[in-house]
Amino acid sequence: MTNASQAPLVGIVMGSRSDWETMQHAAARLEALGVPHEIQVVSAHRTPDLLFDYAANAKARGLRAIIAGAGGAAHLPGMLAAKTAVPVLGVPVQSKALNGMDSLLSIVQMPAGIPVATFAIGNAGAANAALFAAALLAHDQPGIGQALEDFRKRQTDDVLANGDPRQ
Amino acid sequence: MTNASQAPLVGIVMGSRSDWETMQHAAARLEALGVPHEIQVVSAHRTPDLLFDYAANAKARGLRAIIAGAGGAAHLPGMLAAKTAVPVLGVPVQSKALNGMDSLLSIVQMPAGIPVATFAIGNAGAANAALFAAALLAHDQPGIGQALEDFRKRQTDDVLANGDPRQ
Amino acid sequence: MTNASQAPLVGIVMGSRSDWETMQHAAARLEALGVPHEIQVVSAHRTPDLLFDYAANAKARGLRAIIAGAGGAAHLPGMLAAKTAVPVLGVPVQSKALNGMDSLLSIVQMPAGIPVATFAIGNAGAANAALFAAALLAHDQPGIGQALEDFRKRQTDDVLANGDPRQ
Amino acid sequence: MTNASQAPLVGIVMGSRSDWETMQHAAARLEALGVPHEIQVVSAHRTPDLLFDYAANAKARGLRAIIAGAGGAAHLPGMLAAKTAVPVLGVPVQSKALNGMDSLLSIVQMPAGIPVATFAIGNAGAANAALFAAALLAHDQPGIGQALEDFRKRQTDDVLANGDPRQ
Amino acid sequence: MTNASQAPLVGIVMGSRSDWETMQHAAARLEALGVPHEIQVVSAHRTPDLLFDYAANAKARGLRAIIAGAGGAAHLPGMLAAKTAVPVLGVPVQSKALNGMDSLLSIVQMPAGIPVATFAIGNAGAANAALFAAALLAHDQPGIGQALEDFRKRQTDDVLANGDPRQ
Amino acid sequence: MTNASQAPLVGIVMGSRSDWETMQHAAARLEALGVPHEIQVVSAHRTPDLLFDYAANAKARGLRAIIAGAGGAAHLPGMLAAKTAVPVLGVPVQSKALNGMDSLLSIVQMPAGIPVATFAIGNAGAANAALFAAALLAHDQPGIGQALEDFRKRQTDDVLANGDPRQ
Amino acid sequence: MTNASQAPLVGIVMGSRSDWETMQHAAARLEALGVPHEIQVVSAHRTPDLLFDYAANAKARGLRAIIAGAGGAAHLPGMLAAKTAVPVLGVPVQSKALNGMDSLLSIVQMPAGIPVATFAIGNAGAANAALFAAALLAHDQPGIGQALEDFRKRQTDDVLANGDPRQ
Amino acid sequence: MTNASQAPLVGIVMGSRSDWETMQHAAARLEALGVPHEIQVVSAHRTPDLLFDYAANAKARGLRAIIAGAGGAAHLPGMLAAKTAVPVLGVPVQSKALNGMDSLLSIVQMPAGIPVATFAIGNAGAANAALFAAALLAHDQPGIGQALEDFRKRQTDDVLANGDPRQ
Repeated sequence: MTNASQAPLVGIVMGSRSDWETMQHAAARLEALGVPHEIQVVSAHRTPDLLFDYAANAKARGLRAIIAGAGGAAHLPGMLAAKTAVPVLGVPVQSKALNGMDSLLSIVQMPAGIPVATFAIGNAGAANAALFAAALLAHDQPGIGQALEDFRKRQTDDVLANGDPRQ
Repeated sequence: MTNASQAPLVGIVMGSRSDWETMQHAAARLEALGVPHEIQVVSAHRTPDLLFDYAANAKARGLRAIIAGAGGAAHLPGMLAAKTAVPVLGVPVQSKALNGMDSLLSIVQMPAGIPVATFAIGNAGAANAALFAAALLAHDQPGIGQALEDFRKRQTDDVLANGDPRQ
Repeated sequence: MTNASQAPLVGIVMGSRSDWETMQHAAARLEALGVPHEIQVVSAHRTPDLLFDYAANAKARGLRAIIAGAGGAAHLPGMLAAKTAVPVLGVPVQSKALNGMDSLLSIVQMPAGIPVATFAIGNAGAANAALFAAALLAHDQPGIGQALEDFRKRQTDDVLANGDPRQ
Repeated sequence: MTNASQAPLVGIVMGSRSDWETMQHAAARLEALGVPHEIQVVSAHRTPDLLFDYAANAKARGLRAIIAGAGGAAHLPGMLAAKTAVPVLGVPVQSKALNGMDSLLSIVQMPAGIPVATFAIGNAGAANAALFAAALLAHDQPGIGQALEDFRKRQTDDVLANGDPRQ
Repeated sequence: MTNASQAPLVGIVMGSRSDWETMQHAAARLEALGVPHEIQVVSAHRTPDLLFDYAANAKARGLRAIIAGAGGAAHLPGMLAAKTAVPVLGVPVQSKALNGMDSLLSIVQMPAGIPVATFAIGNAGAANAALFAAALLAHDQPGIGQALEDFRKRQTDDVLANGDPRQ
Repeated sequence: MTNASQAPLVGIVMGSRSDWETMQHAAARLEALGVPHEIQVVSAHRTPDLLFDYAANAKARGLRAIIAGAGGAAHLPGMLAAKTAVPVLGVPVQSKALNGMDSLLSIVQMPAGIPVATFAIGNAGAANAALFAAALLAHDQPGIGQALEDFRKRQTDDVLANGDPRQ
Repeated sequence: MTNASQAPLVGIVMGSRSDWETMQHAAARLEALGVPHEIQVVSAHRTPDLLFDYAANAKARGLRAIIAGAGGAAHLPGMLAAKTAVPVLGVPVQSKALNGMDSLLSIVQMPAGIPVATFAIGNAGAANAALFAAALLAHDQPGIGQALEDFRKRQTDDVLANGDPRQ
Repeated sequence: MTNASQAPLVGIVMGSRSDWETMQHAAARLEALGVPHEIQVVSAHRTPDLLFDYAANAKARGLRAIIAGAGGAAHLPGMLAAKTAVPVLGVPVQSKALNGMDSLLSIVQMPAGIPVATFAIGNAGAANAALFAAALLAHDQPGIGQALEDFRKRQTDDVLANGDPRQ
């Protein structure tokens, strides 16, 4: 990860190693935007104490957002949010039997009082959580704000320059 | 609650006071079967530390099963199970928008490693979790086993005695 | 709205007047936390030009987040996000036939490149979008940060003080 | 495309290049029926201004129908319809996680006031949108009407001539 | 119905009398736009021969579009389309058990070859089918085209004039 | 029930007394068609032995079809079919939380080898199971066949005679 | 097909040639049970007149049941049932995008008055429709009844003889 | 199976041989925890009498829990529970068309009175049913209790030791 010298502003966590295939899209996007970040497996069900510690220390450690990916009965994002007021961005990982519908509902249907910002199922959701994290930081991190604007302009230009799908 | 003199063998917990309308059916059934139990609101999202303490102390306090009801992004049963090997019985409470389908998937779709025994959405699930808890205890609590057998025989007899639905 | 003297930091928009029944829960929460905000009906389908103007001017007008509620083919949050890098928080309003499942999928399933942070269907989602907006602002608005912490502590204490659902 | 010398009567647009695999079935059908058409990628989220321009100019440019394919939070058809009274025919592209159910609901569940004519998920929907566009034009374009009748007769004859599925 | 002196350009049919509660929204909209139309119950399952006759004669009788509403296993729109090349606009009526999801899928998931233009479940879909029918006719019926433009402008102005949902 | 003097040809069974509200529509239809029948509550879960006896004796007792209604985890029709080759007609009763989607899938998704003929969720399914039973009997019970034809003609005539839904 | 010398008692029809992959399981089962049958492609949407003729003549031609397989907006079984009182057995073919949920709902959710006996999605449903057809015929076709009993006994014996799944 | 010398405490049954691919994960987990168990195919639909005998004798044979896996209209767990008060743990096997949603609802939506403890769809559910069975036995089988604790500690340590998903 570039920015190794900087303290991470965003934490990417995921419920199991197999979620990395999805969550790497969040990491790649943060990397491209120059957002200092860290990456770790934190399982709500197998390492609940680690989850609590991670959330409880997030603010003090300088994290401005936590991107949490999980599949099935995806409790990780919601339980992080229960333990910290740092914004939690949830990514529903596509599950085997139910295609991530279970992951999505487990993450998004939080009760009033503890919010989790939820993104699309799978790779698109992971990438978008990273873009959203960058947007949160843009207010006081002009470099990230500029990188985000550049990215958005570039993706617009890409569509405009490739308008004929047959080529 | 009768059995006040006895230490509870089963804990009934629920994510919010509004879940009591559903979970009272678990309590009523345990009461009828003479199973000593306790009842408490424990919110995964608003009182995560209480949840952890409850689970961590369950075994030492003599609980043989925990019946946990929750709706929407229902994390309570799964997070209890993450913190204790005492059997956790999950009851999906019927939610407003999605009729409990979200509650059901959030509870039942646990990853391999941490089980939650899940029952039907709503009142039937609450009652059945209590019956299941009694069945767990029947092995070394003959009084409960007998009460369970009596209940099952009675409900069979009720159907047999009232076979004509027009009356 | 209190804070009338302050420029709004958060915009609450909704696709139709009937969405106010849901979105008032966002407004009430922002109000309680002292977050200056504004409220407006902006229909993606009936007033697309207004939608574009609203989004295009959001940053210059000082908005730090836009909370957008919509039901059915809920295009409002996603189209706002297409026109501004200001964080957009989407609230799926419960629809008549499909209970908000259509609203949820229309809002959350954004393609990679343009994120919408999505919250639960209905009132809980509206309240949580407001809490999330406050958390975004907390970094440089210590008063809001403190109000948010107070709110969270209070809701925890409420559960702890009312643990017996039968009373 | 044949009919290159003719001004297009139907515009086929799609949210991303990857939708072409589906939308080519619309193009092939228009081609076969001799309907002058044009093909372009227009992304609701990445090129919202292009979308608005496309819709705003559609009538003046002589388009009689717009066939719009999109997947996931498929906002393209509905936003085109918001900006023009030219008939918009929406094609839900099959999405990865949710098999196009998200695309379908995002397109079909439009609020009263702005219609999008929606067709089946995937290739069948693309082909049928083209056939429907031809049917719209048939009233004053007798050549297209005749081609459509011929096509319909041919497909009936094909079934009648191949009634034994084992051969 | 006004326009009684004119031959109907649009036929509104529905599978049962109980669908009128939904389909009246199509009739009211056509009426308001000055589109000559007719209204009839035609049941695919109880009056299949009437259905065939209706479709077979639609073109000769001068119908330019058929709006067909049905619920449950809603075969009416698709079978009309099987018997005529006149554009068929399908309206899924909200069903009792499945809220119209069955109606929607039965109407929209037509196989390649026979299109049905499908609109939203319930009243919104009925109203939008009427607006779409008017858009089809606008090309050679300038009065209808003008009425449609006026309607669209009016609904935009209504939103703009009532932007504060609290009033 | 008329036909009391005749041995029943059709058995109507249901999983609980509360299913009678739905299943009375099967009884009423059989009654109207003059099909000798019997009515009984048989619970797969509370009276499994009765279920087995009922199925095992059905053929010897002269039953030509069994109409079985059940809701939720609706095992009654499938388990009857497992114990008899007499045709079993399953009626999914609308359940509280999931609107009968659980009932439908539990009844219709039988594995290869043991069929259950399944009808629509709720009252329509109950009525149709009765009509289907009559159709089965029509081959050698001309009176029933004639009654069925009369019923079908009457319902067609009813639609034809009441074609204007506004009256 | 064996029994070529006998007039068919069961007709197997399907909406398209591609349905044969599923419907061959119905044919194979009828063949094995010695039920004279015929096989034909009849498309509700592409050959509606053939459908009507097939249904209208079914009884006179001696058909005792029609097994109809279709996918997507599967109108074939219901429209056959609309035109004949001969029992129609519907088989939902697994569709590409929605896995046959559309096919199932389009077939099973028939309105009161016109029944279609519906079986499971895919191969199991096709096989079971054939077994059900045999059960209908068993009453007056003892050879088929015996073959059905033999089949059922054999499949029971197969399970009993192969009780250890590891071998 | 190790423990061959011991009478089985847990029975693993499944509806068909093809379910073994899923249910082997239950067997492997019991094996690893040293829980004496037996494995058998018992089909609710093809061998209903065997099912009844198995359940009726379970308690006398010393079984303390039955793990039952089934797919589609999965009646096996519920019917076992109807015939015995021994705890039944249901595992929904992933079905072909509906991905196990049918299996899940058929198992979990039991009516009040007869509980089935339900676990996740597929392999995770099978493994978790075994872990849950071990937890039931732990109270009076300290060896199993210790093995379960060891397993849980090991899986926690595994996550902690492998926190970087990129390695």
